[in-house]
Amino acid sequence: MATKKDIEEGLEFIPKFDDTGLIPVIAQDAETGQVLMAAFMNRQALDLTIQTGYAVYFSRSRQKLWKKGEQSGHFQKVRQILVDCDQDCLLLKVSVEAGQCHVGYQSCFYRALKKGTGKMLEFIAEKVYNPQKTYKK
Amino acid sequence: MATKKDIEEGLEFIPKFDDTGLIPVIAQDAETGQVLMAAFMNRQALDLTIQTGYAVYFSRSRQKLWKKGEQSGHFQKVRQILVDCDQDCLLLKVSVEAGQCHVGYQSCFYRALKKGTGKMLEFIAEKVYNPQKTYKK
Repeated sequence: MATKKDIEEGLEFIPKFDDTGLIPVIAQDAETGQVLMAAFMNRQALDLTIQTGYAVYFSRSRQKLWKKGEQSGHFQKVRQILVDCDQDCLLLKVSVEAGQCHVGYQSCFYRALKKGTGKMLEFIAEKVYNPQKTYKK
Repeated sequence: MATKKDIEEGLEFIPKFDDTGLIPVIAQDAETGQVLMAAFMNRQALDLTIQTGYAVYFSRSRQKLWKKGEQSGHFQKVRQILVDCDQDCLLLKVSVEAGQCHVGYQSCFYRALKKGTGKMLEFIAEKVYNPQKTYKK
């Protein structure tokens, strides 16, 4: 059993999967620093990501492995895999060539809460591709 | 009931809390772009964050609201709150004055998977404060 010190200050990679076998993963553009998306991996998705060098997630809605870009062609080449202090979250630094959000934006975080309201959003980005064309392929 | 289009392309902020009433939140340094930590908020934590302008999370281990910095003094001043396409994850752009990880590092992501291994980590950062002194206060 790993101690708190092992987990927080050790050199062994012991990612903590939750009760459903998943760990949250943040993908960040290695070049620009932009946070692109957040998703989940199970053990197999993580192993495939490490082995292939391309991000593979686990889709909760479809309950299956999902190589990012398998439909859109918008892959994530993994440059570095970071883990947080308690090893229950991963951060992938990735290189990307095209928009990463299925709605058409570079990042899934294309809206921000409008200042002075707790309820309204504003768009802070423009679409970088047309998802209707991309996902028709 | 909000449609997929409302959620993904609308201007209404309708954050989706999970079965336990929580939404995952990523904190990113607004100046440097560094991803600092990942945590959770419940509705109350989110409301307090919006109202006060400082990040308030919900601690799963302690099952209570947790104003980031309440013990360490290392607060997060919120510059912008972004939401992702399906509104089930938040990204906070924050200004910080001191190390954000309780272990002593600027970011919780201070270790990376060593290339060519699937099991070993390497440290990629230096501590920026002494947590034993800070948390003794």
